[in-house]
Amino acid sequence: MKAVRIHAYHETPKLDEVPEPTVAGPWDVMVEIGAAGLCRTDLHIIEGQWEPIQHPQLPYILGHENAGWVREVGSAVSNVQPGDTVIMHPLVTCGLCLACRAGQDAHCANATFPGLNVDGGMSEYLLTNARAVVKLDPSLHPRDIAALADAGLTAYHAVRKAAPRLTPGTQVVVIGSGGLGHIGIQSLVALTTAHITVVDRSEQALELAKELGAHATVVAGDHEKVLREVLEITGGGAHVVFDFVAEQGMERLGPRLLRDLGDYYVIGYGGSLDLLTIDIISREINVVGNLVGTYLDLVELMTLTAEGKISLHTSVYPLDAYADAINDLDQGRLVGRGILTP
Amino acid sequence: MKAVRIHAYHETPKLDEVPEPTVAGPWDVMVEIGAAGLCRTDLHIIEGQWEPIQHPQLPYILGHENAGWVREVGSAVSNVQPGDTVIMHPLVTCGLCLACRAGQDAHCANATFPGLNVDGGMSEYLLTNARAVVKLDPSLHPRDIAALADAGLTAYHAVRKAAPRLTPGTQVVVIGSGGLGHIGIQSLVALTTAHITVVDRSEQALELAKELGAHATVVAGDHEKVLREVLEITGGGAHVVFDFVAEQGMERLGPRLLRDLGDYYVIGYGGSLDLLTIDIISREINVVGNLVGTYLDLVELMTLTAEGKISLHTSVYPLDAYADAINDLDQGRLVGRGILTP
Amino acid sequence: MKAVRIHAYHETPKLDEVPEPTVAGPWDVMVEIGAAGLCRTDLHIIEGQWEPIQHPQLPYILGHENAGWVREVGSAVSNVQPGDTVIMHPLVTCGLCLACRAGQDAHCANATFPGLNVDGGMSEYLLTNARAVVKLDPSLHPRDIAALADAGLTAYHAVRKAAPRLTPGTQVVVIGSGGLGHIGIQSLVALTTAHITVVDRSEQALELAKELGAHATVVAGDHEKVLREVLEITGGGAHVVFDFVAEQGMERLGPRLLRDLGDYYVIGYGGSLDLLTIDIISREINVVGNLVGTYLDLVELMTLTAEGKISLHTSVYPLDAYADAINDLDQGRLVGRGILTP
Amino acid sequence: MKAVRIHAYHETPKLDEVPEPTVAGPWDVMVEIGAAGLCRTDLHIIEGQWEPIQHPQLPYILGHENAGWVREVGSAVSNVQPGDTVIMHPLVTCGLCLACRAGQDAHCANATFPGLNVDGGMSEYLLTNARAVVKLDPSLHPRDIAALADAGLTAYHAVRKAAPRLTPGTQVVVIGSGGLGHIGIQSLVALTTAHITVVDRSEQALELAKELGAHATVVAGDHEKVLREVLEITGGGAHVVFDFVAEQGMERLGPRLLRDLGDYYVIGYGGSLDLLTIDIISREINVVGNLVGTYLDLVELMTLTAEGKISLHTSVYPLDAYADAINDLDQGRLVGRGILTP
Repeated sequence: MKAVRIHAYHETPKLDEVPEPTVAGPWDVMVEIGAAGLCRTDLHIIEGQWEPIQHPQLPYILGHENAGWVREVGSAVSNVQPGDTVIMHPLVTCGLCLACRAGQDAHCANATFPGLNVDGGMSEYLLTNARAVVKLDPSLHPRDIAALADAGLTAYHAVRKAAPRLTPGTQVVVIGSGGLGHIGIQSLVALTTAHITVVDRSEQALELAKELGAHATVVAGDHEKVLREVLEITGGGAHVVFDFVAEQGMERLGPRLLRDLGDYYVIGYGGSLDLLTIDIISREINVVGNLVGTYLDLVELMTLTAEGKISLHTSVYPLDAYADAINDLDQGRLVGRGILTP
Repeated sequence: MKAVRIHAYHETPKLDEVPEPTVAGPWDVMVEIGAAGLCRTDLHIIEGQWEPIQHPQLPYILGHENAGWVREVGSAVSNVQPGDTVIMHPLVTCGLCLACRAGQDAHCANATFPGLNVDGGMSEYLLTNARAVVKLDPSLHPRDIAALADAGLTAYHAVRKAAPRLTPGTQVVVIGSGGLGHIGIQSLVALTTAHITVVDRSEQALELAKELGAHATVVAGDHEKVLREVLEITGGGAHVVFDFVAEQGMERLGPRLLRDLGDYYVIGYGGSLDLLTIDIISREINVVGNLVGTYLDLVELMTLTAEGKISLHTSVYPLDAYADAINDLDQGRLVGRGILTP
Repeated sequence: MKAVRIHAYHETPKLDEVPEPTVAGPWDVMVEIGAAGLCRTDLHIIEGQWEPIQHPQLPYILGHENAGWVREVGSAVSNVQPGDTVIMHPLVTCGLCLACRAGQDAHCANATFPGLNVDGGMSEYLLTNARAVVKLDPSLHPRDIAALADAGLTAYHAVRKAAPRLTPGTQVVVIGSGGLGHIGIQSLVALTTAHITVVDRSEQALELAKELGAHATVVAGDHEKVLREVLEITGGGAHVVFDFVAEQGMERLGPRLLRDLGDYYVIGYGGSLDLLTIDIISREINVVGNLVGTYLDLVELMTLTAEGKISLHTSVYPLDAYADAINDLDQGRLVGRGILTP
Repeated sequence: MKAVRIHAYHETPKLDEVPEPTVAGPWDVMVEIGAAGLCRTDLHIIEGQWEPIQHPQLPYILGHENAGWVREVGSAVSNVQPGDTVIMHPLVTCGLCLACRAGQDAHCANATFPGLNVDGGMSEYLLTNARAVVKLDPSLHPRDIAALADAGLTAYHAVRKAAPRLTPGTQVVVIGSGGLGHIGIQSLVALTTAHITVVDRSEQALELAKELGAHATVVAGDHEKVLREVLEITGGGAHVVFDFVAEQGMERLGPRLLRDLGDYYVIGYGGSLDLLTIDIISREINVVGNLVGTYLDLVELMTLTAEGKISLHTSVYPLDAYADAINDLDQGRLVGRGILTP
């Protein structure tokens, strides 16, 4: 089968002919790939940034946002069968460690991460296990939802954690209405009744945010001006700030947008938090870290997607055109999320 | 009556003769002071540090950790009656704002703070309201529990918030086994089954921590050495770190002592948090701010105190000797919590 | 002023001329009534059913669902001022007992209940206290929202308690789409993403349920048939059943509509639960009681109402026509909720 | 190997010689049995009561409370290795269904139940899977803890669910201080600060309850007398009642022992609940069902056991003497929990 493999860092991956994977163990699931998302993390992988964290053995197949159709299952697989449309949770987990037993899949002690440390889904087939596959409503097509597997799941996870406190009358601020942020806004509209204010540099992104249900928007720029506007709109600060940027200074502005007892959710990364402990205690505020979502988060996200409550803008490329897709992403020419289809 | 009043910043307060307060409104409660705690905050008040935050009108009576006996109540007071032993929540709250309605007394929009912005309890009588008084088991004496009203309540509040996740097998690290920390340790022993490791510079403080129920102790000093020891003892880091210091670098060490999904509770203050956002998200850790406890926290703390599960070391001074007490505290000669009794 | 007072049980109340109440205490609030809801409880009061529970002193003014405009406030009132549009929580609470401190207003140890044990709102003015009034968006008119004060609040309270578990993909069954039920359905649509199946005898009520957002409906009647249909629609039973009837046998059907780990919310009353303990434990199901909502529930409900997410069908009568309204309600001629306006 | 097998209902099981099980699949774990608990459920199995629920194929090996030492593991097993002391969760679960993914093992859609529907542990070896085994502190011996696997786990599970609300000053009533109840009391003492009142017919059981930490005891008998005493002791009723009996009328008394907003935990079974819906709503009380605990509950219970906080009274029999043990249990001669050791 065809597969996009990375052979060396700082070089364009190659389209190789490799053997199809086969089902060996009782929990194995072989999936025919319908779509694989391409994201900025793939560029970082090619640049070698993930080598020290995941140290995969080269060459290996890229692709960590995967969806398709089950083709073959091992003897113990009870949750899917051949023909099912599925999306893959980004991690292949063990089901035995305490994190897995508690439903905290993202912290599995024995996980592999296809596309980052083992073969991923930019190919025709992917071998995974039964714990990674979420069976989908047959009305969903892989190319429309593959990119929700990682980026979308991360945004959803953060909103889902905060949802119980986002009761009628609460105020939310979303920093960054891009790839993750626009899924976050749709999740907020679906799960909560909070009043949503979105902060972004781009007028176009703010326009999209409003279409998706944001109640107010603020153009990012001068921090003091943003602070004044947000305090005005929210009547004294947000109960929860979701920071999908968390770099370039936004991570210093973010906590200032909270009211007392507020939660600052960090989802983006890159910057460094700088908070006086007296400010943390006197306002009794919290900083909440967010990694990718759990398997159950992904099940819920797919339910909302099947109900039409969450959707993605995508640009689809055939697998052979992977290099164009990578170039377009790198050059900022790719609109929405890039999708490769075999 | 006699009262210790501050007339000017940077000057020793004076012992004045002032009129006794009287019950005027239906919610008023007049308390004969049995004991007033003296704490480091009083030194900071004298130094003028709280002026820009509370801007009280001088002169006024110091004392924000107060307990005594009810002498007279207003017509609408239904929770205490003359003769009752009471401890006072540090804030006199309105019962009408949304924070009060939600039980978040410490964030009342209309609170006064006796001893910080209105007359406090270093005196013979204190006028407060029905919402501030907690009726005590008559077996408790004001001098033994007054200092729990603020410092103890803050430590208890933090432990109480964390308690639901401190299930059997969880690991806790306590940074600082001093005034607040040793109440925190007793609260942890009373409320949880967590394994408790205490970090402090003082061998004596660590010895006390062990007597109070800590399972392991680590001498503070070289950060890397403390980190190695804590990771070893806790099997990979704490589920919750309680930082009762949060300055002098401990606030930078603290978050490193967590395992994935861990909570760093900030109770002390003075320092500045410096955390990479990638570290927050990849480990999915949280920073949790903690202010003084709620009224219900104080009710619970008094229950534990009456049951003998929490106790304080104190040094008692007659009210007339307030200047000695202040000097002893300032010079580090005061052992345990200082208490003034009229 | 004019007031509808009950002088003797089993007799039609009379329209009396009584003195206007006056503000005496610092927490008093005097409200000009804009609208008072009339509900089945008023019929039960007239029939004497509430005498043994509330034993009010006759004569007194009816009306326990009240809204209007503040006319005068006591000296300590900080949450409303003259001119504000307000709705009254059904209970006038103390703010001192432990239930009040915990935000559990409905269980206040010292509450009065205007319209049931003290003078209510079927009049021109009502004296209440600051803890009972919720300030409203000026766009809301008392006649449109008064009936939410008790019936609506009860339905909202139940949904609000269940909401955190009603995540995407969960199944809800609502029994009874009448006065309370149709507020419950609107609350479910506003607060959750659950799939809603409504069971009612009336085709018209089911039609309304669908318009309000129910996803499926089942005509009540033969219990086994309803059971089969509900299990089919919900894929094996509901996560939560809201029983707004809880009499006439529905309280025996209700728990059977649950899946394992399900919650049976009792909101209506009249019947008697009959459940085998082995059924409770082997399915690990719960029965959840629901009384009227808290003050904060009412604040949230008013927020949703101002946002247009919850609305009531009403029939408005002038206060003088109270006897017609009572008759129409008694004879089943009253469509929607009955409202009296002075 | 030797194995106690049931060949026909209403007949004494036989001691058969059967082949040892072998590890076949990658998740298999073969355990050398150290101890198997004998409980009243085994008597019910022999009487055929479980046939219609579990319909096992006869003959099969009894024993559903098992502990021992790992002898061999499949290729994918990462949580235990040969030599480890282990206790077995009563269910062998799939790890794939939504209940398993949510950590709700007891409701696994694909579980087997050794000793009830497949071969159990009254034998020399047991084949189970990696998801069922909890690795123990080597200081624990199987014969001391085997009986915690089912009965103890059920009691612990109920207490664990209630623990977050059992804060200082709360009141608990335990009905039944027998096999499950005395584990429940130890769990309450370990996990909570609640005041514990125990109700039992047996003076001896109440004596044991006091030794284990109960604060008050009430002799069961006349319901009205018990009610009066409990209301007196608890100051108006319990926040939580744990009913380990739930038959013979206790299930009708139980809910009456609650205060408003209280929870009635059903753990025992046999009787039938009879509750007026008006009583449920006016007091806003809940009925909470409890099945066996989760895998994580068992991990916690074993942690407390290793710490010496929970222990069992047992009578040990060699496996060959299984018929004596069964007779002794049936005749009421067995003190504590019966344990069979190969």
